[in-house]
Amino acid sequence: MENRTEIGELGEFGLIEHLTKNFEIHNASTVLSVGDDAAVIDHFGKQTVVSTDLLIEGIHFDLMYTPLKHLGYKSVMVNLSDIYAMNASPTQLTMSIAISNRFSLEALNEFYEGVYIACEKHGVDLVGGDTSSSNKGFIISVTAIGEVAPNAFVKRSTAQKGDLICVSGDLGGAFLGLTLMEREKKIYLEDPKIQPDLENESYIVGRLLKPEARKDIIDFFEQQNIVPTSMMDVSDGISSEVLHLCKQSNLGCLLYEEKLPVSDESRKAAYKFGLDPTVCALNGGEDYELIFTLKQEDHEKITLNEEISVIGYMTEVTEGCKLLTKGGNSYPVTAQGWNAFQQ
Amino acid sequence: MENRTEIGELGEFGLIEHLTKNFEIHNASTVLSVGDDAAVIDHFGKQTVVSTDLLIEGIHFDLMYTPLKHLGYKSVMVNLSDIYAMNASPTQLTMSIAISNRFSLEALNEFYEGVYIACEKHGVDLVGGDTSSSNKGFIISVTAIGEVAPNAFVKRSTAQKGDLICVSGDLGGAFLGLTLMEREKKIYLEDPKIQPDLENESYIVGRLLKPEARKDIIDFFEQQNIVPTSMMDVSDGISSEVLHLCKQSNLGCLLYEEKLPVSDESRKAAYKFGLDPTVCALNGGEDYELIFTLKQEDHEKITLNEEISVIGYMTEVTEGCKLLTKGGNSYPVTAQGWNAFQQ
Repeated sequence: MENRTEIGELGEFGLIEHLTKNFEIHNASTVLSVGDDAAVIDHFGKQTVVSTDLLIEGIHFDLMYTPLKHLGYKSVMVNLSDIYAMNASPTQLTMSIAISNRFSLEALNEFYEGVYIACEKHGVDLVGGDTSSSNKGFIISVTAIGEVAPNAFVKRSTAQKGDLICVSGDLGGAFLGLTLMEREKKIYLEDPKIQPDLENESYIVGRLLKPEARKDIIDFFEQQNIVPTSMMDVSDGISSEVLHLCKQSNLGCLLYEEKLPVSDESRKAAYKFGLDPTVCALNGGEDYELIFTLKQEDHEKITLNEEISVIGYMTEVTEGCKLLTKGGNSYPVTAQGWNAFQQ
Repeated sequence: MENRTEIGELGEFGLIEHLTKNFEIHNASTVLSVGDDAAVIDHFGKQTVVSTDLLIEGIHFDLMYTPLKHLGYKSVMVNLSDIYAMNASPTQLTMSIAISNRFSLEALNEFYEGVYIACEKHGVDLVGGDTSSSNKGFIISVTAIGEVAPNAFVKRSTAQKGDLICVSGDLGGAFLGLTLMEREKKIYLEDPKIQPDLENESYIVGRLLKPEARKDIIDFFEQQNIVPTSMMDVSDGISSEVLHLCKQSNLGCLLYEEKLPVSDESRKAAYKFGLDPTVCALNGGEDYELIFTLKQEDHEKITLNEEISVIGYMTEVTEGCKLLTKGGNSYPVTAQGWNAFQQ
């Protein structure tokens, strides 16, 4: 029999102490960590970068197919992704959670194990948070803090006409993983005797449940002395993100369908579900890749990196935002990404 | 008829733009604000202080008697209070909210009006956040960021034996305001024709709904060249907070009942509700005052400030934490403050 310890037995401060006791400090910038009114950070002449996210059960995740350890890991990763998208390095994190009494201490331990692994992997210090009860469901709020050399951060609004549009990794996988999980959930709810069929689908399931923030790309930029002219992370889908870059930089763009990076696994899954892989790549969210623009003279440098694809270039604002299909047709890019307020 | 605009009409980015458009930047340290993956802050050689809080409808507030404008104001204040409790100055804030479709744009406007007034009052810049939907209820997550001269922050763990224990303002008012509101809510639910009777109770209602973070105390310390030996803010009640200071500083304490600052309004309200004003002062939470310890030689300096009361002193850890009553009896101090996980 598995143990079940009620959260109430520890009290709020006992709980925080228990959940954070294995976390070690990796950064000299962490002057004061968990256990006071606030954490203190000294970035020693660098600038501080701050990003925050709220994740709510039933809206952003479904515990029916999301293991708590993966959820803890992902909650950290999606926030680190925002820090990398500024061309900065994450250094600290605050993690607040609210839970109903349906969660045991053992369940929270699993969640924090995922948080721990993600923090270790990126050398990030957990420096604070808040622990509370909720009437229903699991609520997660993460604030990620990072550092960047003075004015070396990269915004969304500074792309130039003619710049190459690039993306890391591949696209659409997380959306296809979600499609698969929702399908299996439906089958299971109709007949609980049928076990989920996830064979050969570990790639897309992993893309959904265990995204990786692209530290490697930021490290590569530094090694190669590349400074993107604009950058953001891919959370809503690249059609939505590229429109942000265009709008904020007051430019248009041309994307090539044939250049969109889609993995073989995603392509196969899309065909299986009767979906167009290109539509999944454009509009599927949660890939947590980086989309960025580069000066054309940096093109040679990035051919070294197989994880980076050039998918188009920036044009005049009057040209609009367009996708050139494999068949040679041109369509306007429209954002069909996840919209929190449309049901 | 009042207008009702559905949130869905604006979309996520339209909503953020709408809600933040009136917010101006006050601090040179705010290098990049709302509208990118993350905000960028440059505290120019100072240290960065970070605190975060999660506020959940039905747990931390009741919209039946909390106007949204007050809620916005209070959400900011409780976080600024944590920054002041480090002897630091708040400079930036991120505000994330999740709402169900029961909230209209007009309701959110009211909430953000309160956020705006609180930020203006303390010269704090709103630099980011996240806006999402919830299945049920209103969820608020605030991260406050501040600055402090290198190593000038004040922790909880550095009180010394013999130090004076001081508190700002008066205690128990917010708890009595809550008691009143809960009583009036109950009466109203039993008979909606009976209007709430809040006459002559504006002080305690204000203490609950519109707490003020004690910037004035931090400013006073600076003017008088006072550095508290330890400090924290009063959110759970001072019996709980003083135990934190003692535990983290490895000391005991002696508090004097007769020295606990209780306003006339709170005293009257306590008697009306059949409560002991001392118990309210010790265990009532949410006053958002500052509790701090001072070297005895600073005593003269603080007699200048009517907003500061000396309520006891720190003793050896072996002496325990005690309250000396007006009748001359000594009782152990126990924390009966709000515990998020006890129902």
